Amino acid sequence: MTPTRVVAFGGGHGLSASLRALRHCVPGLDLDITAVVTVGDDGGSSGRLRAERGGLPPGDLRQALVALAGDHPATRRSAALFQHRFAAAAEGCGGAADPLAGHAVGNLLLHGLTELLGDPVVALDHAGAMLGAVGRVLPMSRQPVGIEARVRGADPDRPDEVRTVRGQHQVAVTSGTVESLRLTPAAPAACAEAVTAVRAADWLIFGPGSWYTSVLPHLLVPGLADAIVSSPARRLVTLNLVAEKETLGLSLPDHLDTLRRYLPELKVDMVLADSKAVGDPAAVERAAESLGARLVLAPVAVTDGTPRHDPAALGAALVPVLGADR
Amino acid sequence: MTPTRVVAFGGGHGLSASLRALRHCVPGLDLDITAVVTVGDDGGSSGRLRAERGGLPPGDLRQALVALAGDHPATRRSAALFQHRFAAAAEGCGGAADPLAGHAVGNLLLHGLTELLGDPVVALDHAGAMLGAVGRVLPMSRQPVGIEARVRGADPDRPDEVRTVRGQHQVAVTSGTVESLRLTPAAPAACAEAVTAVRAADWLIFGPGSWYTSVLPHLLVPGLADAIVSSPARRLVTLNLVAEKETLGLSLPDHLDTLRRYLPELKVDMVLADSKAVGDPAAVERAAESLGARLVLAPVAVTDGTPRHDPAALGAALVPVLGADR
Repeated sequence: MTPTRVVAFGGGHGLSASLRALRHCVPGLDLDITAVVTVGDDGGSSGRLRAERGGLPPGDLRQALVALAGDHPATRRSAALFQHRFAAAAEGCGGAADPLAGHAVGNLLLHGLTELLGDPVVALDHAGAMLGAVGRVLPMSRQPVGIEARVRGADPDRPDEVRTVRGQHQVAVTSGTVESLRLTPAAPAACAEAVTAVRAADWLIFGPGSWYTSVLPHLLVPGLADAIVSSPARRLVTLNLVAEKETLGLSLPDHLDTLRRYLPELKVDMVLADSKAVGDPAAVERAAESLGARLVLAPVAVTDGTPRHDPAALGAALVPVLGADR
Repeated sequence: MTPTRVVAFGGGHGLSASLRALRHCVPGLDLDITAVVTVGDDGGSSGRLRAERGGLPPGDLRQALVALAGDHPATRRSAALFQHRFAAAAEGCGGAADPLAGHAVGNLLLHGLTELLGDPVVALDHAGAMLGAVGRVLPMSRQPVGIEARVRGADPDRPDEVRTVRGQHQVAVTSGTVESLRLTPAAPAACAEAVTAVRAADWLIFGPGSWYTSVLPHLLVPGLADAIVSSPARRLVTLNLVAEKETLGLSLPDHLDTLRRYLPELKVDMVLADSKAVGDPAAVERAAESLGARLVLAPVAVTDGTPRHDPAALGAALVPVLGADR
């Protein structure tokens, strides 16, 4: 029997939660997992590397690799190494004298591998082998992108003014309301391997994650959007548990509406939401139905009250969805 | 049958040659290989890391790991990653804006692993596992050391003046004559795992390598010197093919005499020299005999005339030596 081919889209923490949940579906389900990752990050260690040296921002790619790392103690330790951030040097040095502080080792390793091997996809495949990864990690594009938003009320003193906010980090933390989103360049080339994976997939999974900066960007890459719409795969949206700063004021039905706004041809089969976080299920159900989807409610949050998906619980909710016959 | 336990001492390129030669002895011989590496490097990428962040200089440790890396294509590729040096950033940036340029990826990885795991030996063992290494790499001490030499004629205009030259790199490139060598601190603690390996060894191998900065420093670590002298192992010295800058004026017999000078109790069983490079075999034989050793001549240099050991030829010369019964 061939495995069920699943492609999960996202950026940082949300995609990690999705991938960790998919791992919890194995071995009950035989899954072939591919992560497709946004490449718009411009903050932190990734932002420094990108600004100083060019190339793809590695942080979100690294997070996805680590989420898929093998369970052997040696690969768990290598995953910890990928995640480790260089401490500040012991003696008080200026920035120039302490250039490594804050960089994740895995970010430097991915940057070096890409430099050595000449291609980010070859580099990611080797990094995956180093980590014994149980799936493949691909960038949505081989070229880094910028993320720009038109934001109303970015300046709290001018609540009606609409201005352009540039950069993933700035968009993610803006206190205004995002009115529209675009990438720079506006139509980046899709990663060919990601397009191939989408076309061959049985399931495409969107979210959870920062909606504007991790989930929607995939829909703005023309080659990827075409593949998503034309793929024979079924499509699942996993909704967030709570509004993040960039989506304050955006309800869960609004989250679904934005998908249709940026990719009108998108049809969705299932929307998965947490039973408690969903609020008014009827409104979410209507928004799901307008995408062609059925709403599935399940307890998928951690039980300590923090707004994080529990990988085991999310996995348990995914098993009957992904395991169902067409 | 238990494997033959071999401990090879050295620093950078010379130790790599010795380790690669030992690999060529397998599978003809069943070897358990341990490399014990000087920790005095203060130049290049290692020197920058050591000066900016402390800890052991990783470069020579990295070289030894790579020399022992497994033959699988994936571990060969990881070894290439360890060796890869970050290129200068594409755009003309100042040093502060291009802080990675010139660093070997493996140096950063070893530094990060040590920071993560809290101990250089645990870090080296994990790095060895990442590379599928066919032996173990240990530092001669868990603390970095300084290397200082009293040098006559370091200033060519004052050929009779003796001055102190500080730092492995400066000693290695001095144009004067080294009159004496010392470490700072003068008596660093030996790495306990290295002492254990020496006491349990069947063979101890010294050289080839930069004599003052890669071979002799081991004899100046009291705990290691004690273990070397008291080990039941047999001892082999592999001589260099050519005088390096630090040993200009030091003949091959002089190389052997310095061993006795810095560790008078040292007895040696075999001295291996290249048939052509040996020059006057009688003088080398006398120096070997004064250490208790027999001189073995073999063609161990590469055949293109450059003064480098050929791992396959050196390995072929080592097989009858290491394979002989006691």
